[in-house]
Amino acid sequence: MSEYRAPITDMRFTLEHVAGLETLRTLPRFAHVDGDLLTGVFDEAGRFASEVIAPLAQVGDTIGSVHNGDGTVATPPGYKEAYQRFVEAGWPAAGFPEEIGGGGLPWGVASALQEMIIAADMGFSLCPMLTYGTVDMLSLHGSEEQKATYLGKLVTSEWSGTMVLTEAQAGSDVGALTTKAVPADDGTWRLTGTKIFITWGEHDLTENIIHIVLARTPGAPPGTKGISCFIVPKYLVNPDGSLGARNDVTCLSIEHKLGIHSSPTCVLSFGDAGEGAVGYLIGEENEGMRYMFTMMNEARLSVGNEGLAVSERAFQQAASYALERKQGRTVGGERGEQAPIIRHPDVRRMLMLMRANIAAMRGVLYRNALAIDLSRHLEDEERRTQEEDLAAILTPISKAWASDLGTELTSLGIQIHGGSGYVEETGAAQWWRDSRIAAIYEGTNGIQAQDLAMRRIPLGGGVAMHRLFEMVLGDAASLEGDLKPIADRLTEATEASAAVAMTFGQWLLEGRYNDVLAGATPFLKMMGDTLGGWMLARGARAATAEPAGYDPAFLADRIALAAFYAEHVLPTVIGLKGSCLAGAEGMFAIEESRFG
Amino acid sequence: MSEYRAPITDMRFTLEHVAGLETLRTLPRFAHVDGDLLTGVFDEAGRFASEVIAPLAQVGDTIGSVHNGDGTVATPPGYKEAYQRFVEAGWPAAGFPEEIGGGGLPWGVASALQEMIIAADMGFSLCPMLTYGTVDMLSLHGSEEQKATYLGKLVTSEWSGTMVLTEAQAGSDVGALTTKAVPADDGTWRLTGTKIFITWGEHDLTENIIHIVLARTPGAPPGTKGISCFIVPKYLVNPDGSLGARNDVTCLSIEHKLGIHSSPTCVLSFGDAGEGAVGYLIGEENEGMRYMFTMMNEARLSVGNEGLAVSERAFQQAASYALERKQGRTVGGERGEQAPIIRHPDVRRMLMLMRANIAAMRGVLYRNALAIDLSRHLEDEERRTQEEDLAAILTPISKAWASDLGTELTSLGIQIHGGSGYVEETGAAQWWRDSRIAAIYEGTNGIQAQDLAMRRIPLGGGVAMHRLFEMVLGDAASLEGDLKPIADRLTEATEASAAVAMTFGQWLLEGRYNDVLAGATPFLKMMGDTLGGWMLARGARAATAEPAGYDPAFLADRIALAAFYAEHVLPTVIGLKGSCLAGAEGMFAIEESRFG
Repeated sequence: MSEYRAPITDMRFTLEHVAGLETLRTLPRFAHVDGDLLTGVFDEAGRFASEVIAPLAQVGDTIGSVHNGDGTVATPPGYKEAYQRFVEAGWPAAGFPEEIGGGGLPWGVASALQEMIIAADMGFSLCPMLTYGTVDMLSLHGSEEQKATYLGKLVTSEWSGTMVLTEAQAGSDVGALTTKAVPADDGTWRLTGTKIFITWGEHDLTENIIHIVLARTPGAPPGTKGISCFIVPKYLVNPDGSLGARNDVTCLSIEHKLGIHSSPTCVLSFGDAGEGAVGYLIGEENEGMRYMFTMMNEARLSVGNEGLAVSERAFQQAASYALERKQGRTVGGERGEQAPIIRHPDVRRMLMLMRANIAAMRGVLYRNALAIDLSRHLEDEERRTQEEDLAAILTPISKAWASDLGTELTSLGIQIHGGSGYVEETGAAQWWRDSRIAAIYEGTNGIQAQDLAMRRIPLGGGVAMHRLFEMVLGDAASLEGDLKPIADRLTEATEASAAVAMTFGQWLLEGRYNDVLAGATPFLKMMGDTLGGWMLARGARAATAEPAGYDPAFLADRIALAAFYAEHVLPTVIGLKGSCLAGAEGMFAIEESRFG
Repeated sequence: MSEYRAPITDMRFTLEHVAGLETLRTLPRFAHVDGDLLTGVFDEAGRFASEVIAPLAQVGDTIGSVHNGDGTVATPPGYKEAYQRFVEAGWPAAGFPEEIGGGGLPWGVASALQEMIIAADMGFSLCPMLTYGTVDMLSLHGSEEQKATYLGKLVTSEWSGTMVLTEAQAGSDVGALTTKAVPADDGTWRLTGTKIFITWGEHDLTENIIHIVLARTPGAPPGTKGISCFIVPKYLVNPDGSLGARNDVTCLSIEHKLGIHSSPTCVLSFGDAGEGAVGYLIGEENEGMRYMFTMMNEARLSVGNEGLAVSERAFQQAASYALERKQGRTVGGERGEQAPIIRHPDVRRMLMLMRANIAAMRGVLYRNALAIDLSRHLEDEERRTQEEDLAAILTPISKAWASDLGTELTSLGIQIHGGSGYVEETGAAQWWRDSRIAAIYEGTNGIQAQDLAMRRIPLGGGVAMHRLFEMVLGDAASLEGDLKPIADRLTEATEASAAVAMTFGQWLLEGRYNDVLAGATPFLKMMGDTLGGWMLARGARAATAEPAGYDPAFLADRIALAAFYAEHVLPTVIGLKGSCLAGAEGMFAIEESRFG
């Protein structure tokens, strides 16, 4: 069983000196978020993640959640108690605004706490993560009565929440869903239909589950314009807040998955027993997709966070194995003397790739989270919009780039273990299997790439993307002395990415949509790697200034990671340009029938 | 349950028009291997793989082989019968020389047959694959008596064989093994020790298992120079060929692995019950490693074949899903009309990446197999040596590049399935899990990269590598007309690879071993992608000449695949140059202790 220690120094450094927490601190609402507060919160949360959650990961994987046949789902041994302690310690509420009973921490800081819980046990972390989405939905779009009824217990995670979108024929194409909602005489609604892939859709951790369900009302227009959003609680809630009747929502089965075994992925049936499950309309009819989109940035960022967190966990396990495991001798080593494998260049290369990419992801994700915070709370409207646009650009990158990296880096974690990495008991394989879902759910990575290329490049007539490249180039230009080679590689990568963005922008104007779509995925990878290099370069620059409160060795590491990334990762960005700009013709040169 | 159809047209085309079967046909031994023979053998073997083996894959994964506690291992339902039919049909013997009872097909053709069995069920395929190694070992290094005793039943696969190398402290560093062999009075030996990770080390498919075991004799020098090689049969064989006493070899347990669940990975204990398991020395004492090396090319190529085969299987399943599954509309499609996802550019991109890389791998692997054939059978000594050198260069590339690609492409197969790809019942995840071992066993991919960079670059004073690059550039220069852009990308990639090889060669002369080792893995990737482009370019050139016996649509596909690969893959080769040439300094810039 591998241990987990939250990388709190790197988290704090990334927030304070890479991602730009100082801007957020100028706001009265977040003025208290200083270094001491961060250290205190991170220490405590890190200990909780290590001691209470992390030991669950392996049993969660081995035993998993189990469907009992009677529609109930049993979570793995230890989950109930750990969840209870998680709620009691107040961790779930830390990142919500004080106005709704939260801890008032910015998203940037809450992201770090979320990373700890994911790294400790990704399957477990999905339960509160889905609840966050429910809280966002209700606090932004719920009526006062709905807020009063549900929000309190969701903020604390005493109740959990779900997002109920997918149906068998409606996955990426949400607009194809057919679940029906018809009005009842009392102003409530009755829902009937079957939903699939519902994360934590049924379980035994909380006394109630609040489902947010997308459905169609009578006469709704086809597609995404005819979707409405409903609250469907597992147990109806009485006016005094006590639980009433069991609603007509049934968990028919749970999926047998490649990973995240503790997270029950449910088939939910609404209205099996009678005239439909009782539902409460959120906001206006047919506005469901719009409401969903307002919370999508946070949800996608959370999935990116999974890529980061699971990589960190895999890195810690692989690094500790590489320090202990002796095998073979190094160049110049004594004959017959076995060295720890961390001394072999190829093993060190893998560890450095993991570590540098983890630092890069952390930078991009925190910057993304802070952009969301700033877009909500900055006073100046123009700057608020700028941050909103930045968040819009960064979010699909955070989601897809980090989730793909999660799978790539956890695979290196297996490789470092050699043969034992392929044996399940070692635990290295779990991180790889768990990671693999993140590229799929919450919008496949292909859809993220499509969003980035088709919708973010034209944002503000291309100004938003241009501003981002200018920021990167500006930071690169500020690097001096030993950091100059980093600046050069970063500038080259940025210019290559910008050239693709310019071409795509032009193609979009010319209506060459398929050409843009054909290159969208490699473009997203270019952007992610470039922005990762940007964040590492900012970290190296900050480290050179030797800020107080950090071990000089830690600061030296940050410079070394930036240099390594500039040498090994940034040059590959340029190699993707050809693939981005190849267009759709060659992609469709083989007839469809010849794939059968 | 996904179906499998052997891609026999592409196999035949690759052999005949890409990899160079025509050279082999000039030898009297292989003059009969014409198009008709290939078509006949491939048709029949393909049908066998589809109908008998492929249906086992899912039950093999779900149930797996089971250790019964009494030291026996039960294979999954259906395996025994299928194995029996496999033996009876004569498939295992097809690629062995007629002199030892084989079918006399060259390795190149046998590779294609092997690909079919792996694609059908990789776990199953490992049993005969290990037996092949035993046959090679005995036919090259066994005594006449040993050959007479064991070879016949191994060639037919009536008995299976194993390779027993690894011990807990001796994985990549085989020289660290401690299993002991002491001479007995009767000229045989007694072995004691515990071995791990023994593929198909115990099972119920054959009545006997012939273990080839590495051990140390009394007074043997330390390291690899003191290793001897023994035959240790599960049941001793009487002079009349009947089975005698059970030998003292016990299967203590089998591993619970990420994939290839049907292949029992055994802990074998020798000499538990008494004074040691009875063993028979192969060849001379202390020559064991040398004997192992003579069969390593074939074994490593077989592992590369796993990357290819499992990708083909994943491709077929993903392509068929993409043709059937409707979701979302295409650019310009009717509103509300869902298109098969194969029409979405990003899905098509993934399918094309799979298909182009599969064709590239098949080319490189067959060329590698034919180089092994030619190095054994060509009459001209100089040309024989050239092919031997080429095989030496290609083998680590085939092994590592193709096995890494196997994991990458099977992951695309999951991605194309969206959410259902993460559900185990779909079957797409199995190929990904199965594939992951290939980068680890038979020498980790890091060790392959090390071999390529440290041992193959200096081969013949650098002449062998130079000759390979000249061949690629020569073929590129021969491309004309529409194929010119392919030639340009291929030339650029080759020149980048050659530049790294030149620098590494220079560094080796200067003793800068760690700098070479630090860049070995990206260099191997550069070489693999470049040579893959070479094989695709040769295929495109051959297709342009419209050879008889091929559907024009098939030939057009081959040109399209080469063009796609040239646009999307070859440019990435250049992006790896920086990482290759970065040297070891930056890799070791962070102190070892700071990884703990």
